[in-house]
Amino acid sequence: MNKTGKDLDEAGTPSNFKVRSIDLETGEYTVIMNRQDAEVLGLRSLDRVKISNGEGMIVAIVELTGSVVEKGALGILKNGRRSLGVSDDDEVRLVPVTRPRSIEIIKKRLDRIELSTEEIQILTEEITNHRLSDIELSAFVTSTYMQPLTTREIKDLTLSIVKNGEVIEHDVEPIFDFHSVGGVPGNKVTLLVVPIIAAAGLYIPKTCSRAISSAGGTADILETVANVTLPGHRIKEITETVGGTIAWGGGVNIAPADDIIIRAEYPLAIDPYSQVIASVLAKKKAVGADHLLMDIPTGPQTKVKTMDLARTYARDFMEIGQQIGINIQCAITFGGQPIGRNIGPALECKEAIQILEGIPPSSSALEKATSLAGIILEMSGFSGDGKEKAAELLRSGEALEKFREIIDAQGTEIKDITAEDVPIGNFSADICSVQRGYVSSIHNKKLVRIARAAGCPHDKLGGLVLEKKNGHQVDKGDVLFRIFSSNEQKLKLALSTAKRLSPFEIEGMVLERVPGERVIHTVQ
Amino acid sequence: MNKTGKDLDEAGTPSNFKVRSIDLETGEYTVIMNRQDAEVLGLRSLDRVKISNGEGMIVAIVELTGSVVEKGALGILKNGRRSLGVSDDDEVRLVPVTRPRSIEIIKKRLDRIELSTEEIQILTEEITNHRLSDIELSAFVTSTYMQPLTTREIKDLTLSIVKNGEVIEHDVEPIFDFHSVGGVPGNKVTLLVVPIIAAAGLYIPKTCSRAISSAGGTADILETVANVTLPGHRIKEITETVGGTIAWGGGVNIAPADDIIIRAEYPLAIDPYSQVIASVLAKKKAVGADHLLMDIPTGPQTKVKTMDLARTYARDFMEIGQQIGINIQCAITFGGQPIGRNIGPALECKEAIQILEGIPPSSSALEKATSLAGIILEMSGFSGDGKEKAAELLRSGEALEKFREIIDAQGTEIKDITAEDVPIGNFSADICSVQRGYVSSIHNKKLVRIARAAGCPHDKLGGLVLEKKNGHQVDKGDVLFRIFSSNEQKLKLALSTAKRLSPFEIEGMVLERVPGERVIHTVQ
Repeated sequence: MNKTGKDLDEAGTPSNFKVRSIDLETGEYTVIMNRQDAEVLGLRSLDRVKISNGEGMIVAIVELTGSVVEKGALGILKNGRRSLGVSDDDEVRLVPVTRPRSIEIIKKRLDRIELSTEEIQILTEEITNHRLSDIELSAFVTSTYMQPLTTREIKDLTLSIVKNGEVIEHDVEPIFDFHSVGGVPGNKVTLLVVPIIAAAGLYIPKTCSRAISSAGGTADILETVANVTLPGHRIKEITETVGGTIAWGGGVNIAPADDIIIRAEYPLAIDPYSQVIASVLAKKKAVGADHLLMDIPTGPQTKVKTMDLARTYARDFMEIGQQIGINIQCAITFGGQPIGRNIGPALECKEAIQILEGIPPSSSALEKATSLAGIILEMSGFSGDGKEKAAELLRSGEALEKFREIIDAQGTEIKDITAEDVPIGNFSADICSVQRGYVSSIHNKKLVRIARAAGCPHDKLGGLVLEKKNGHQVDKGDVLFRIFSSNEQKLKLALSTAKRLSPFEIEGMVLERVPGERVIHTVQ
Repeated sequence: MNKTGKDLDEAGTPSNFKVRSIDLETGEYTVIMNRQDAEVLGLRSLDRVKISNGEGMIVAIVELTGSVVEKGALGILKNGRRSLGVSDDDEVRLVPVTRPRSIEIIKKRLDRIELSTEEIQILTEEITNHRLSDIELSAFVTSTYMQPLTTREIKDLTLSIVKNGEVIEHDVEPIFDFHSVGGVPGNKVTLLVVPIIAAAGLYIPKTCSRAISSAGGTADILETVANVTLPGHRIKEITETVGGTIAWGGGVNIAPADDIIIRAEYPLAIDPYSQVIASVLAKKKAVGADHLLMDIPTGPQTKVKTMDLARTYARDFMEIGQQIGINIQCAITFGGQPIGRNIGPALECKEAIQILEGIPPSSSALEKATSLAGIILEMSGFSGDGKEKAAELLRSGEALEKFREIIDAQGTEIKDITAEDVPIGNFSADICSVQRGYVSSIHNKKLVRIARAAGCPHDKLGGLVLEKKNGHQVDKGDVLFRIFSSNEQKLKLALSTAKRLSPFEIEGMVLERVPGERVIHTVQ
């Protein structure tokens, strides 16, 4: 029984229909009706109807057909049949209803009117319950892009998203959390930060995502060696016993409204500012975070392009965090080139373990991870140098041991994992410099496109290993990076993509800039 | 073969799939793919793929499924199977392609960047070819609401819509046309204006719409006595031989992009300003109009709520008309209460014929029709008083004769039609005043809701007859209006709706206002 239909007025006379199964899935409840029936009932495409039988009731969106469903029948999709408990030829009662209130509320947004707390709650509830069509949802998403929500509206949206999903309540405290806004390739630092923090005796139930447009999300990376799909109660248990998790956020039903909103943002390739904040904070609030460190990679080729924007994000994150009871600090980090050497799920996992083992292939990932973990340690009240303490937890092997405990608790077949245990693709090819000079820039997005051409993120064993980074000197013929793939065809595609895109710029002079990855700014 | 796919780059390796028929229709080409296949190909919901077999090629939007379509199969909907000429178990080749350019163009609009002529052409072409998902289309529609197009963009959009549809080219000239922005109930004047103009020897190939949110569009009204579905060549022939048509615009493929855009506006209940102008003018340009009179009903309960907005519309219509080669004049008309007495398809048709017969049941419809027809006559170069000439063509019976010729040419079973020939609903009920006083206001939208409750526009014989209008004196118990329906159940629903909504306001004093329907402003 979809309780959110109760507020909709019946707007016509009821009639009976015979169920016809349509084997399709949609997010929202949709029913397919013959055009002639719709005409009699005065219904148009995307109007709403209440469907009920003895047991259940749903509010569904009407789609019309000339031929798929005959007169007197009603095509009902899987989710609707499940909720109603009906199957072919069962009878259901249908009555047109008024539009959901959320449409009026979206219209207000289009007219640039600030929404009340109650309106945001209604809207979020109806989004969560799949009551909006794609057209309506897109209008809301577009409006938040063209006219950002106010800080108060973002706060209300965040809390509404939390309320309309699963919440993990811990029996221990305080709970720490870490989140990167993303946008920079090779950012495997979560695999370092979580074990360092847990090794320090703190609690960090980290949930993370899979790749959307990147070569690999943290969930994809860890999944090359361990299970990442954990229900909420397992996240709680592992956090309380081992100290931390690195779990896939999609495995637990936190903030489902956010997933629905993101689905509408993806085809438009937009990341509305206010939505980004609500999205992140809702997920952190839902896992019970008391203290949160935000990593905001900044640079012209990342999501956050300027320091000004990064500072605005930082300020709003902290302000809204305070309003919803999360103590937030933000680290604006260098996003001008990939973090570390490796890009792609297994390769990033391998590099993270190398760092845990004390044999980092490059300094930037180590540097970034210890800086970030150090801030969290200082947030916990540690009075010394947090970064030094983090480095110490790495050096002593305690972080490696904690990493092994975490993946063991989450589920892995590999005991006492080492970097050697991480499989990588069998096919590889080198991309070499055609001239002598210095690496003056590395194009993040081009590298991601090459890694994806090689099969990432689906091919977890594919990816790139950078042999040179910004400021490095190269000779003609030097290897710039190596491409890996499990599939020879994809390797070839990645090679031709690499040649076409040319992601490295080599210039014949020494660059003035200090390799940026060493710079880390903290806003507090 | 969908030629508009040519510009999309292949963005992955091709693979073969077996066709699985999905019996559903959508506007755009959609294919349903198993999630596992999509993961291997790196495809997400709403990504684009090129599908081809020996004969044809389509660019389709990907939707994902866990169970409906098995691995290796591809669910293809009706329109796609038709375009490709494939059926179950045929093999097709699939290759991921880059996003259509229109998405980039829509993104620009979201960023408030003015679009170039070429960009508007690409966007319109891709909308026409159903290349956009609902989410993308809605983002465009929402953006035109939140950030109206410039006059130049509206002009380009208008011409692009025309170009991407059927165009009627006449062998006679000049061509006159008439259009009402709508929003006022009972506006049957097209059934008077067209025969008056044709009776004067001018050419007026009028196309009109069916009801969307009203009780009856002009197409619905005339359809109670004649065929209104005419292909383009018949509109041309009838115009050239009889002088005019009153044809359903949906019967001819003019301005298809506009229909697609309107489908996305309906669920949001928005009428973006710039879209209204492009929509109207594209349809008029496509039927070859040289001179156009626009009726802009204005009043707080119509689409155009203020004189200021009406004047803005008038100015923009005329300016853009000039740029696309249509001479436009605008009449801002009173929209404060229904036009004439009758609301609903058959009832409005009956009233129009009564006026043509010289026995008008009220003066406002006659007054409005002759005023508007008079302006068109003056636009044609008629040097006398246009309105007087229009009235003369009515009085002489020439307009009635022309109306009979028009419906005869379009197709009707009724020879020498009279108002008596128009059927109306068998069930009726009166709504009476509960107090003595003067009618101080009549609520348009409430009347429409009552008429729709009575079955309009589907029940062509249902509707309302107003016995009292603004400023009329009523006694307690006097009939205010009568409801008609073909269906007793619906009549009851309409009655209870009428009692609940109470569309008439009766006040106990003489009103100062002159019955507004006599006022007509002309902007030129």
